[in-house]
Amino acid sequence: MKIDIFCTGGTIDKIYFDAKSDYQVGEPKVGRILEAYNLNIDFEVHSVLKKDSLEMTDQDRQQLKDAISSCSNDLILVTHGTDTMPETADVLKDLTDKTIVMFGAMEPAMYKTSDAEFNAGCAVGAVQSLPKGVYIAMSGRIFEAGKVKKNVEKGIFEIKE
Amino acid sequence: MKIDIFCTGGTIDKIYFDAKSDYQVGEPKVGRILEAYNLNIDFEVHSVLKKDSLEMTDQDRQQLKDAISSCSNDLILVTHGTDTMPETADVLKDLTDKTIVMFGAMEPAMYKTSDAEFNAGCAVGAVQSLPKGVYIAMSGRIFEAGKVKKNVEKGIFEIKE
Amino acid sequence: MKIDIFCTGGTIDKIYFDAKSDYQVGEPKVGRILEAYNLNIDFEVHSVLKKDSLEMTDQDRQQLKDAISSCSNDLILVTHGTDTMPETADVLKDLTDKTIVMFGAMEPAMYKTSDAEFNAGCAVGAVQSLPKGVYIAMSGRIFEAGKVKKNVEKGIFEIKE
Amino acid sequence: MKIDIFCTGGTIDKIYFDAKSDYQVGEPKVGRILEAYNLNIDFEVHSVLKKDSLEMTDQDRQQLKDAISSCSNDLILVTHGTDTMPETADVLKDLTDKTIVMFGAMEPAMYKTSDAEFNAGCAVGAVQSLPKGVYIAMSGRIFEAGKVKKNVEKGIFEIKE
Repeated sequence: MKIDIFCTGGTIDKIYFDAKSDYQVGEPKVGRILEAYNLNIDFEVHSVLKKDSLEMTDQDRQQLKDAISSCSNDLILVTHGTDTMPETADVLKDLTDKTIVMFGAMEPAMYKTSDAEFNAGCAVGAVQSLPKGVYIAMSGRIFEAGKVKKNVEKGIFEIKE
Repeated sequence: MKIDIFCTGGTIDKIYFDAKSDYQVGEPKVGRILEAYNLNIDFEVHSVLKKDSLEMTDQDRQQLKDAISSCSNDLILVTHGTDTMPETADVLKDLTDKTIVMFGAMEPAMYKTSDAEFNAGCAVGAVQSLPKGVYIAMSGRIFEAGKVKKNVEKGIFEIKE
Repeated sequence: MKIDIFCTGGTIDKIYFDAKSDYQVGEPKVGRILEAYNLNIDFEVHSVLKKDSLEMTDQDRQQLKDAISSCSNDLILVTHGTDTMPETADVLKDLTDKTIVMFGAMEPAMYKTSDAEFNAGCAVGAVQSLPKGVYIAMSGRIFEAGKVKKNVEKGIFEIKE
Repeated sequence: MKIDIFCTGGTIDKIYFDAKSDYQVGEPKVGRILEAYNLNIDFEVHSVLKKDSLEMTDQDRQQLKDAISSCSNDLILVTHGTDTMPETADVLKDLTDKTIVMFGAMEPAMYKTSDAEFNAGCAVGAVQSLPKGVYIAMSGRIFEAGKVKKNVEKGIFEIKE
């Protein structure tokens, strides 16, 4: 079983630069997360963008969509900043021949208390269990694209009524 | 969404006792794992057994089956030692009205390098995505009961031919 | 044995704010670090400043000096940003009746790979072993005030020739 | 600055063997701990014994003493099981021309909550700050050989009255 993973940046990939006393979106962390375990899956990481998701443009989303579309695999993960993950999910909804599960993290993967590993697990478990479609795996829940929003105050993803 | 979690012991729950220079199967760790994140799911932990799975008897498996059977929820996780997880999955296969996902860990959850959090994520993602049936979520894969074995040498779960 | 710990901010205390997609200097972390172990020491944390050390002024350093000076204990730790730690050590050198050990971290204490716990250990071990004076415990070394500099390129503290 | 580190086993080095469902004393962990940080010290690890300290014999202690004695460096760390660390410290007291700091951990270094990194920091900070002699760095305290005991009930090291 092989999974292709398209990375766009976001909190999950944020790292701290001592030299600049600043953080920046760094290299995709999902590969290191999955390599840390002795898994029985193949995966390939594609770094498409390295952006805070608040800065993603329509063009960025089209670039992501094109990259996924041109991938022959139908098991797809997308790592993404949390703030506009639902908007990007809406854009990907036309890709009806794949199971696409998006995830990210509320805290950088480098953090001791990060949800990155758990969320990656949720997404890996979901992508091979779900029918074709676009989904978001956050806060321990699997949401369908178009039916999910981020509740910034509570720090969770929830169903959009 | 609520998930009921039945715990039987195994490596995931093994702890080290300094006083005895020994390890033992301790309290279920899955509750602490899930509480550590800000999740949007409810869950209830049921401690059924605290055993190394090599020591599980037919009677133990029947006890687990009865406990799950008497639970009204149809979203069920089971934490279990890895050595006989496939055997217990076979016993649970009669419970056809629930989605039951079993998981454990190759290293104790207390370990820095444990796969417990990632496996818990896989199982949580899978249990809400799969049709009714009994499954094992290990090594990043979701296996159907009866079609899975532990490869002790490689330290992974794989498809039983 | 009691140790008084004066905190000024710096990388060790930097936390990530999802709501702002930003890092900021948060509450002192050293108390949580020491509470995490079952130690046989008493300690009291004094939060004097919450600043990136590049922003520390002469007035800030005087405020820190006054705070330490008015403490009756002679076992003193200071947490501090790394960039100007040597400068602040120079200012504290007049306080000749105490053993003062400064430390910080090259990565935030919240990071999995942070040196905060190890550096805290170095400082705790040194403060009760050294004669009165002002020292810096970084990079696994104990340096005397006035004889130490940060090598930004290598990311270590070293002897100032 | 170079430190020579002599390892004898103990809880700090205990690892879990899935294949045997058992804990055993593994390879020395102190090297990995120190390599994980960007330190400005040189160190060399000598694996003398791999024993639970309850099983150490007079002959084992003599072997350790001989190994340290034949080392030309005077900055020495010793990792050791906690149960008989004070007894071994007594045996090493004749080595009056070196600063020898012993430490270990109440929980295996592989544990998320282990005190191994902090204790290693204490020992590294102390060994370069103390006059020649034999010391134990545990529970955040530096004890002189002969004046320390393990309080098993409280899980700490304390002064022996």
